[in-house]
Amino acid sequence: MRLIDQTRLPAELVYVDCRTPEEVAHAIRTMQIRGAPAIGCAAAFGLALCARRSNAPTGEALVRELAGCADVIAATRPTAVNLFWALERVMAVARRMQSEKPCAIADAVIEEAQRILREDIDANRRLGEYGAELLERGSCVLTHCNAGALATGGYGTALGVIRSAHAQGKIVRVYVDETRPLLQGARLTAWELLQEDIPAVLITDSMAGFLMQQGKVNAAIVGADRIARNGDVANKIGTYSLAVIAREHNVPFYVAAPLSTVDSSCETGAAIPIEQRSSDEVTEFAGKRIAPMGIEVCNPAFDVTPAHLVTAIVTEAGVIHKPADNLADFISQHKS
Amino acid sequence: MRLIDQTRLPAELVYVDCRTPEEVAHAIRTMQIRGAPAIGCAAAFGLALCARRSNAPTGEALVRELAGCADVIAATRPTAVNLFWALERVMAVARRMQSEKPCAIADAVIEEAQRILREDIDANRRLGEYGAELLERGSCVLTHCNAGALATGGYGTALGVIRSAHAQGKIVRVYVDETRPLLQGARLTAWELLQEDIPAVLITDSMAGFLMQQGKVNAAIVGADRIARNGDVANKIGTYSLAVIAREHNVPFYVAAPLSTVDSSCETGAAIPIEQRSSDEVTEFAGKRIAPMGIEVCNPAFDVTPAHLVTAIVTEAGVIHKPADNLADFISQHKS
Repeated sequence: MRLIDQTRLPAELVYVDCRTPEEVAHAIRTMQIRGAPAIGCAAAFGLALCARRSNAPTGEALVRELAGCADVIAATRPTAVNLFWALERVMAVARRMQSEKPCAIADAVIEEAQRILREDIDANRRLGEYGAELLERGSCVLTHCNAGALATGGYGTALGVIRSAHAQGKIVRVYVDETRPLLQGARLTAWELLQEDIPAVLITDSMAGFLMQQGKVNAAIVGADRIARNGDVANKIGTYSLAVIAREHNVPFYVAAPLSTVDSSCETGAAIPIEQRSSDEVTEFAGKRIAPMGIEVCNPAFDVTPAHLVTAIVTEAGVIHKPADNLADFISQHKS
Repeated sequence: MRLIDQTRLPAELVYVDCRTPEEVAHAIRTMQIRGAPAIGCAAAFGLALCARRSNAPTGEALVRELAGCADVIAATRPTAVNLFWALERVMAVARRMQSEKPCAIADAVIEEAQRILREDIDANRRLGEYGAELLERGSCVLTHCNAGALATGGYGTALGVIRSAHAQGKIVRVYVDETRPLLQGARLTAWELLQEDIPAVLITDSMAGFLMQQGKVNAAIVGADRIARNGDVANKIGTYSLAVIAREHNVPFYVAAPLSTVDSSCETGAAIPIEQRSSDEVTEFAGKRIAPMGIEVCNPAFDVTPAHLVTAIVTEAGVIHKPADNLADFISQHKS
């Protein structure tokens, strides 16, 4: 599995080759690859690498080996549900075939991983089209973190909507939150938008309110790491503050995510685990200490935006307006 | 004039000696010294240095020379009103004495600068006491940027309140917004609090909403760079977003500032000029490029929080509750 090392963008475009499931787990844990749909795809290919390399003598032995790999990959990051969803989807294929020959199971596992990737790209293109319909010509939109091609199999969720709307001539400007601490906005979203000549303006996270106060933002669009059944949305830290500020200014707040991001087992956002990451991410930058030694740090990687602050959720099956009222019905119609 | 070079904290505690008004202007422009009350004091000492060094043959000539220096110092940064207030206060002394001998004017100018510094420290201690009364025992407070000893003649405004409340045993924890782009929270506020063993937790600016959502913040306290007659508050970028989020969670939002920060010539916040600073502050971090080359940047250094979001303004003359309703009367009673 070949991936772009996102920790080194935008300074360097470096590819990493993962040859084992452990290398995939390492890439996810260290955020060489990040973004909920992207780590779902990577997790599936981690199992594909396991299946391809295995010398298991029986189908049952291979399934046990795959289950062990799935545990290792699942232990990397807790919040994005796509990781667990993709692992479970591949494991379900393997378990169904466990009485067959190992090579047949391996082929099916590899095919399922490739299908997950293809479906993700396809879902992004479709949700991009649905989302673009929500934006009017002349729109200035604001996005947080990176929900782009890098965060997905390709094309992007929030940036997929922006790409589609830009292709339709609707986008005047994209305001990009830099997204501390790891600067996925400044490093990744800015880079993606520059690649495609989409007009972009970089800001610090604290400037979004200032711009909305001045009437410069027509819509905010973000991705999601996990969506509860009631429409609460876990996404990159800072998303909740942004949603509150958007509501204060009557700026529509859109969440763009494939249906695989909806976790029906979570009744509300309170059930979504929030990853706490190392304090170094806040106190150091590029290896240089920026805060005094000994300072305590709080570093949650995500927050939960309550459903009532979300204007609409954009999925590959259509737009769910007022998700606080309508997500449950939509899911029961569109998700098996 | 000897000052701490705030651009090098917390890594190094380095003092800078300013021997000319131009060196003072340079220190303010480059933010070696920053914080509204501190740059007011520095500006006054810039004129004192001018007066001390001058060879002007007459009082009128010295006043002309001082006026030229005041123009140079006034051109450094546009938003904090204390800069213009201090320059005008010293110039008024000089102008009143312009028929006297240059050495007498110089002595008076130096004395006025020293009085401004003494009064600022005294005002901070008094407003600290008033502000501490607003906080209950067991409080967790959140602050943005640095409104501490470094930002003032000494003791601090927002941190003055926190110091006083901590001395009374009321403070459990101070959450410190790192305050992008220049990280005055991570570099300066965290450093000041650590020096005095006040329990502090550093967060990125985007985490304040998350903490308030979890009920972990009892009050937010910030300083101010300029307060309009109607109670609108210009302060470090991000203050406005913080005030909106605080209101959403019914967290009291306090502004601590000496009366010199109130600009009666500004009817509302719309009249306060907002400094735009270099894009490098956002695209580079410790000399290292973090965003792709060619990305456009918006970098306002301040924003304006409307008075209705401010629970109270804490001054050296007392607390103004509901400043939207009560600031004008308070000012007419307490400010000449």
